[in-house]
Amino acid sequence: MKTASIISVGTEIMRGNIEDTNSTFISRFLKERGIQVKFRLSTEDEIDDIVSAVRFAEKTDIIVITGGLGPTADDLTREALAKYLGRQLIFQESQWRIFLEYFKRFNRPMAESNRQQMQLIEGGEFIQNPNGTAPGMFYKQDGRLFVLLPGPPRENQPMVHNDLHDLLVRNGFVEGDIFTKVVRVYNAGESFLADLFRNFGEDIQLGFYFSAQGWVELHFSKFVGNQKEIDKVLPLCQKGLKILDDNGLFYTGDEDLSLLVLKTLHARNLTISFAESITGGNLSGELVKNPDASKVFTGGIVSYSNMLKRELLDINESTLQRFGAISEQVAGEMVLGLKKRTGSDICIALSGIAGPGGGSGDKPVGLVYIAFLFGDEIRIKKENFGGNRLQIFNRCINFVFSEILKFYGSPVNIDY
Amino acid sequence: MKTASIISVGTEIMRGNIEDTNSTFISRFLKERGIQVKFRLSTEDEIDDIVSAVRFAEKTDIIVITGGLGPTADDLTREALAKYLGRQLIFQESQWRIFLEYFKRFNRPMAESNRQQMQLIEGGEFIQNPNGTAPGMFYKQDGRLFVLLPGPPRENQPMVHNDLHDLLVRNGFVEGDIFTKVVRVYNAGESFLADLFRNFGEDIQLGFYFSAQGWVELHFSKFVGNQKEIDKVLPLCQKGLKILDDNGLFYTGDEDLSLLVLKTLHARNLTISFAESITGGNLSGELVKNPDASKVFTGGIVSYSNMLKRELLDINESTLQRFGAISEQVAGEMVLGLKKRTGSDICIALSGIAGPGGGSGDKPVGLVYIAFLFGDEIRIKKENFGGNRLQIFNRCINFVFSEILKFYGSPVNIDY
Repeated sequence: MKTASIISVGTEIMRGNIEDTNSTFISRFLKERGIQVKFRLSTEDEIDDIVSAVRFAEKTDIIVITGGLGPTADDLTREALAKYLGRQLIFQESQWRIFLEYFKRFNRPMAESNRQQMQLIEGGEFIQNPNGTAPGMFYKQDGRLFVLLPGPPRENQPMVHNDLHDLLVRNGFVEGDIFTKVVRVYNAGESFLADLFRNFGEDIQLGFYFSAQGWVELHFSKFVGNQKEIDKVLPLCQKGLKILDDNGLFYTGDEDLSLLVLKTLHARNLTISFAESITGGNLSGELVKNPDASKVFTGGIVSYSNMLKRELLDINESTLQRFGAISEQVAGEMVLGLKKRTGSDICIALSGIAGPGGGSGDKPVGLVYIAFLFGDEIRIKKENFGGNRLQIFNRCINFVFSEILKFYGSPVNIDY
Repeated sequence: MKTASIISVGTEIMRGNIEDTNSTFISRFLKERGIQVKFRLSTEDEIDDIVSAVRFAEKTDIIVITGGLGPTADDLTREALAKYLGRQLIFQESQWRIFLEYFKRFNRPMAESNRQQMQLIEGGEFIQNPNGTAPGMFYKQDGRLFVLLPGPPRENQPMVHNDLHDLLVRNGFVEGDIFTKVVRVYNAGESFLADLFRNFGEDIQLGFYFSAQGWVELHFSKFVGNQKEIDKVLPLCQKGLKILDDNGLFYTGDEDLSLLVLKTLHARNLTISFAESITGGNLSGELVKNPDASKVFTGGIVSYSNMLKRELLDINESTLQRFGAISEQVAGEMVLGLKKRTGSDICIALSGIAGPGGGSGDKPVGLVYIAFLFGDEIRIKKENFGGNRLQIFNRCINFVFSEILKFYGSPVNIDY
């Protein structure tokens, strides 16, 4: 497998004024072409620093350097690479003419300082830049490819997509591709999952990434050269999914759970509404983040206070008194009250304690009762969710959505 | 001037799955303290790669390494630094007990694999992590400081702000301190603000950072040696705020808007409820993310469909027919219907078009009518918010909260 380094040059990056989005973009671009990015480096616009970064990167086959190709005195990337290679920079009259054409076309003011951008490393080649004044450049030495690209993303990224891609193909650096399957696993921790797969032992790379939205992404990935190799990978992924099934874990493909719910209900022509106490609108809000939510979502009631539970959901005062707001009984009455108000095909009500205060011995923080009314069928679940207030919200939301998908046997889009 | 390197470790960064936001954050943090970040490097979770990155970085006084401190077999940063230093990793029973306490408190399932996170480099010290399972760590050698920090930003950034800052001060790497005032400006773009301050010309650094939640953070910062210098900075900040005032911009200190609303209403013993159409629960959800929201929040109605607008908010069918759901008239009827149901001191209703579809010439995407009922006083605002669906939600939410704060003249906590 070919390896690469990415070096980004610039004061704005080093001072944290901007994100180094080019390096992220190029990382993804190279990875998708089966090239391993081994190192990323960033430096200020200092010749010696850039040279030492290139020297460090010479362990890899491809060295992509971005930034520092502008027309000002502190744009030193060309000089630095020339110094590293022990080569001259030579002004190119032909490129200067292309540049003058460009300026004429866009009717932009041109400065004499732009001349330094037309200097080429002896033995290298320019890469034309249709989106700015700085041409890119590449140079080959001992089978190693050095590529200079301009820093502004709107000049950099088109050049990566078109010219860098062609350069890599022409030089035989792209031979296969990385095959990745992403699975989102709900209601399980990163380290718990890693433990489950400790003895998986198959020839495939596993990654476990916790998402702030409350699921863990499980990545199966492998570098493959052709379709036959992909065919061999699929059974390994299936074996992995079986481990999840055997442990009763709910998972989906790399799709948003709320969007899956929306599609599932829309395909079945079903409507839904929520009565939220603990989540206080966040469950409705999550569904509504999807365009066209109105096709299935009737609306709901945020019955945060007991007063609204009585007024809008017809909860009996005696039920509240006897069992408390956080109880199976109140959740059950909430969902029936909601049905009466909205008439939706699916009604769901939640009551629980999100903390940090308000918990007690028999009703701790994280205790939630969730009542589901699928048509006429009522189901009430009692759950104990861990984490802080926002994590408990997310777990409630993920739980509700995953129960809906389980009930309707929604086909999860994992094409193994 | 002291110099630093930042090394970020992780497959997700190297494959371009996520931006390396920690490095940007730490760059800014160090720069603000007068420390020059000379190099940034990123590697995969490979011991030899991490070791060679540290070796490269040893030109600098401070080496901050983030990521790869998790509990799984591919978290190798501890091992790599130990190898570089020629030191052992030793399991710390005392740290394991702190960890077990943490898990008990948050009621989370614990895995045996977490034990590796309690390994300390011989001669180093742990940095406690109140937001996750991976403690940080630091080690000093020949006047050089090595610091390991966890990768997830919500664990990393508090540790940078509190512990790394202290470490740098204690070790004499920061001779003064950076004085920073953060102001959140609502309903204004980053470049619009930068333009306003183009000729500010004072001896203070300005930063403009767009937040995904829909405000722009304006940072006034200056490296200061003593209190006398701070006294000179304050008038410069005040001069900056005056520019915001002169342009009618609403701003707060570095405080959550929803929390400010909660505190403001609680101090005045007022209750609030929402009737949400366009935001579909996200406004309620935002308020409820704060603990003790129940002290002011009665609840609300997510009147997403016209049916619920009629059933729960008593909107006249004829008003809907004549003016459409997105109209001043319907927003006005919604807020009165809400008041009747909830009796809250403050009632707020929103109706609008979040897009991407559903807009038209006279009612474009982003058009929102917002009706406020402060006691008996009704105010209906018409706004046109830009951006995509989620940005429009955020702008609705920020607008509602800022109007509440303006109405009650809430003291914004900027102590100039």
